[in-house]
This record gives sequence, structure tokens and C-alpha cells, in this order.
Amino acid sequence: MKDAPARPGRKVNTLVDIEVYLKECTALVDVELDRRLPDAAAPPAVIHEAMRYSLFSGGKRLRPALVMAGAEAAGGTRAAVLPAACAMECIHVFSLIHDDLPCMDDDDLRRGKPTCHRQFGEAVALLAGDALESFAFEIMAEAALEGRGNACDWLRCTAELARATGSRGMIGGQALDMAAQGQEVSCERLQAIHRWKTGALLTVSLRMGAVLSGAGEESVRALTRYGEGVGLAFQIMDDILDVVGDEAKTGKRVGADVLLDKATYPRLFGVERSRDLAAGAVREATAAIERLDGRADPLRALARFVVEREG
Amino acid sequence: MKDAPARPGRKVNTLVDIEVYLKECTALVDVELDRRLPDAAAPPAVIHEAMRYSLFSGGKRLRPALVMAGAEAAGGTRAAVLPAACAMECIHVFSLIHDDLPCMDDDDLRRGKPTCHRQFGEAVALLAGDALESFAFEIMAEAALEGRGNACDWLRCTAELARATGSRGMIGGQALDMAAQGQEVSCERLQAIHRWKTGALLTVSLRMGAVLSGAGEESVRALTRYGEGVGLAFQIMDDILDVVGDEAKTGKRVGADVLLDKATYPRLFGVERSRDLAAGAVREATAAIERLDGRADPLRALARFVVEREG
Repeated sequence: MKDAPARPGRKVNTLVDIEVYLKECTALVDVELDRRLPDAAAPPAVIHEAMRYSLFSGGKRLRPALVMAGAEAAGGTRAAVLPAACAMECIHVFSLIHDDLPCMDDDDLRRGKPTCHRQFGEAVALLAGDALESFAFEIMAEAALEGRGNACDWLRCTAELARATGSRGMIGGQALDMAAQGQEVSCERLQAIHRWKTGALLTVSLRMGAVLSGAGEESVRALTRYGEGVGLAFQIMDDILDVVGDEAKTGKRVGADVLLDKATYPRLFGVERSRDLAAGAVREATAAIERLDGRADPLRALARFVVEREG
Repeated sequence: MKDAPARPGRKVNTLVDIEVYLKECTALVDVELDRRLPDAAAPPAVIHEAMRYSLFSGGKRLRPALVMAGAEAAGGTRAAVLPAACAMECIHVFSLIHDDLPCMDDDDLRRGKPTCHRQFGEAVALLAGDALESFAFEIMAEAALEGRGNACDWLRCTAELARATGSRGMIGGQALDMAAQGQEVSCERLQAIHRWKTGALLTVSLRMGAVLSGAGEESVRALTRYGEGVGLAFQIMDDILDVVGDEAKTGKRVGADVLLDKATYPRLFGVERSRDLAAGAVREATAAIERLDGRADPLRALARFVVEREG
């Protein structure tokens, strides 16, 4: 990869402390989610408790951070895209709740706490996930109606978010993942699963941040390529952490993928080669945003964070 | 109920053959859904097959008909609101798929065919329901972007649809319903369950039709009151058909509510008094739209259909 020419305003990304950046994003998102969500005591209380239990269980808020960092890279502000960041997190958490259900991965532990259905029962977990899914679109439509920015940009993002969530995105990826359990899976098939299951939402996070900040199509494309690279690296690292991770840091049962006989990168390539592939994907992601100025530094730091994280 | 004064253009609703009207609406919705849905063979095929299996299983398309009849009553056309009618049906069918799951009502039969999870397995049914939910919002946002009518009206309807679907609407009602199983339930509580579980979507169907047709707030309110009355009558009849219905006509197992020890109208009031209550609710619904002209006749016929149906 050749060095980008120096340009005014370009800073090296050592200036961004990604831990601090993520904490700031988390604080913003948590306040906004708390403000928009029905009160835990509002009937039916059990659903609202379950929604809040899973939403406020110490997630890294990586996707909201990507929405916000995408906005900043495109010259926008974190505040302006905050509803989209919240909507994205609702979709993500709904997918986790349903993915943990007995008929799916049957997980007992998520972020070090009992999974939603272990805490509230299966029916409530099913409904809380369903409710978070519709709540995401409620937030998107309401943000547009509140007169934030251009209503057409919000509509475009709502359509993109719905598509990235659905059968040709994250949900489709979950189905491909289930179908691949216990099967010999090629590298191409594994990449397709990951691109759908994880990549679609990570990519649309960046696209929403950019589109809502009025980015031109070239910037949107660059951020999309960045998202694809980071998404791939993220999923490879997830697979690696399932093999070598520390349960205290990952907050979930190590070895779960092996138990479910899942298609993973370490299974196909071994841990070391998988780490190389993740590092290569991050290099590609960073190269894709080479032409963006210093306002993209949080994205550069986020890309590095993805391959260096331990949980 | 006193007679409304005669007004120009007012026709008696015997002119609307509701069976024909429903068939027309169904044909329109089925063509549009087929056009918008991913092909059954598109990967992951199993999800798209399951989505189509449940969507095209002979439902009455009552909610889409209410969207379209609401539009006509407000001076609009069925064609202009067709995407909203399709989105509504996707939400309805998603709710049926999840409601039938083993952790919910555990039903084997729906519209005379195996339920989605009996046909495709639990994981696929869960994901097909999830995908139909996001697909509804994809349709809404895309319809707005296609330049149909006023984008702000579509946004408002998207927000209303999301809210009526979520924890303070249909999904909240399912939670209240689950919580009430095996309990002594007061009439007020039973009404609240029905208002949320069934009423919210029926009401928002009418509101979407009206709002997207540029109706004034007074008409929107009248149609909302109509929807509340019809929604109540519809649910009472559902309860009654669970007791006295013909499985060949209802397409579902008769007596399921009793088995689940559900709160129902016949249980609280007996079948005959429940029929009176349903008839009263329909009278109130019809009175609410008394001031609307002959273009509301399909709604008048639909109200009668709701209490006279046998399945």
C-alpha cells in the first residue's frame, strides 16, 4: 500500500484514543436510547424491562460508533446522526436476542450476563426482539419527522437499514449460517455468510452516517469499501476469539462455535493465518479511506481496534 | 343510532359486494407483494420460500383492504396506497408466524395448512418472521422514495406503523395476552389486550389509507374511531369462532384458546352476549363514519362482514 499524499488537515490517527472515542459514543447513544425508549415500568413492563436489559448490557456500541465516525468522516456531526446510531443498535441487539434463542444458537451467556430468554423466558425474549426491530424504524421515521436534516436522506437510510436487516442482509446471513452448521464450507461460502450476517449492518452503519451528513456518492462508496473490510476483519476476529478468547473479556462462552460445528475462519485456515487475513482486511479498509482527511481518523483508529480487541 | 341526513353521492352499502371487494383487494396486494418480494429461489432460498409460504396462504387480506377502503373513503385511490397495504400485510403475517411458535401459542395449523415452523422448522420460521417485519419498513421507505405522494405522509405512516407494531401496540398486546393466560381477567383488561393486540394494526391500517390520501385530521379521527369499533368486533368474533367455529372455514384448530386458558369474550360473557357486544361495536364503528359519503361504503360493508364472517 503506497502512502497517501499529505494533505491539509490530515492527522495521524494516533491522535484518536479509540477507547475514549467509543466511550463518548456509548454515552451519547445511551442517553438518547434511554430518552426514546418507553419507560421500564410502562405496560407491558416485562417487554420494556427485557428491551432495556438487553440494550443496556454493556455492549461496545461499535455500530453506533461507525454511524457517528462515518458522519464525521463525511464532514457531519455525531449529534445529527444520533437517532440513526440508536436505530442501528436496536437492530443489532434484536438480532442478538433472537440469535441466542434455543432454536438458534441456544446461548446462556451474553456480555457476561444471562441471555434475554434465560432472564425473561423465551416468549418475552422473542417479543422483546420483535419490538426492538420495529422500534428501530420508529426512531428513523420520527427523526425524519423531527426535521433533522433532509427527509429524503432519512428515507433512503431507512430503506437501506431495512434491506441490510432483512433476508438479503443480516437475517439472510443468520439463515446461511444455520444451514452451514455441520457442513464442509468453502472459503467463498464462509465469506458470503459473514458478508451478510455481520458485514451488511456494519456497512450500512457507515453509509447512514455518510448519507445523513450529505456526503457525495464517491465518499459513500469509499466508506462502503471501508465497511466491507472492517466487517470482514471483525468477523474473523470474532471467530478467533471464540477459539482463543478470554471469557471474562468476551462475555460469552468460548468454544460455542465448535460445539455448534459452525463454519469459521480458524476452522478453515487455523488461528495464525486467520489473524493475517484479518490484518489484510483492515489494511484494505484503511486504504479505501486514504483520500479522506483527518476527520476520518476515528475510522482509522476503529479499524485498528477491530483487529486488536480482546473481547 | 339516528339516521344520517341524506347527502349527495351517499349510496346504501348494499351496492358494495364485500366478497368481490375483498377479492379485488387481495388480487392487487398479491401481485404487488409478488413483485416486491425477493424470488423464492433467491438465496437464502429457505427464508424466501418460508416468507412466501406464509404470505400466500389464503389470508383474507382484511388489513390491506382496510388500508385501501380507508383511502377510498378519504377520496384517494387503492393504487396509491398499495405499498402501505402490502407493508401492513407483511407485519400481520410476521406476527402470525411468531405467534404460532412453540414458545408462544404452539399452533400446528394456520389457514388449514401447517404453520410456518411446522413446515420449515423453528429457526427458519423465526427468521422469516423477522425478515417480513423489516421488509414491511423497506416497502414503506421505498414507496416514499419512488415519489408516491407526499414523502412526509409516508414518513408519518412509517412511524405510526412501527409504533402500532411495537411494544405499545401489537407486540405489547401479545405480551399482555401471554401474561393473562391462566389468570382471572377483568373486562377492562381483556379490552386492553384486544385493543393492543388486534386493534392497533387495524386502526393504523385505516389511518395510513387516510393520511396517504391527504385526508384532513377530522376524517383521520373518524376513521380511527371506526377502526377501534371494527377492531373490537373483529376480536370478539375471533374469540367466538374459536368456540363455535368450523375448522374447515376458520382454518385453525377450534378450542385452542380454551386449551391455552386464554382470556376471551365468550369465557367472560358467554357466546350470545359476546355476539351482542360485537354487533354493538360494529354499530359504533358505522356511526363514526356516518358523515362520510358513498366512498365510505366499502368500510360500511367491511364492518358488517366482520360480524357475519364464519372464518
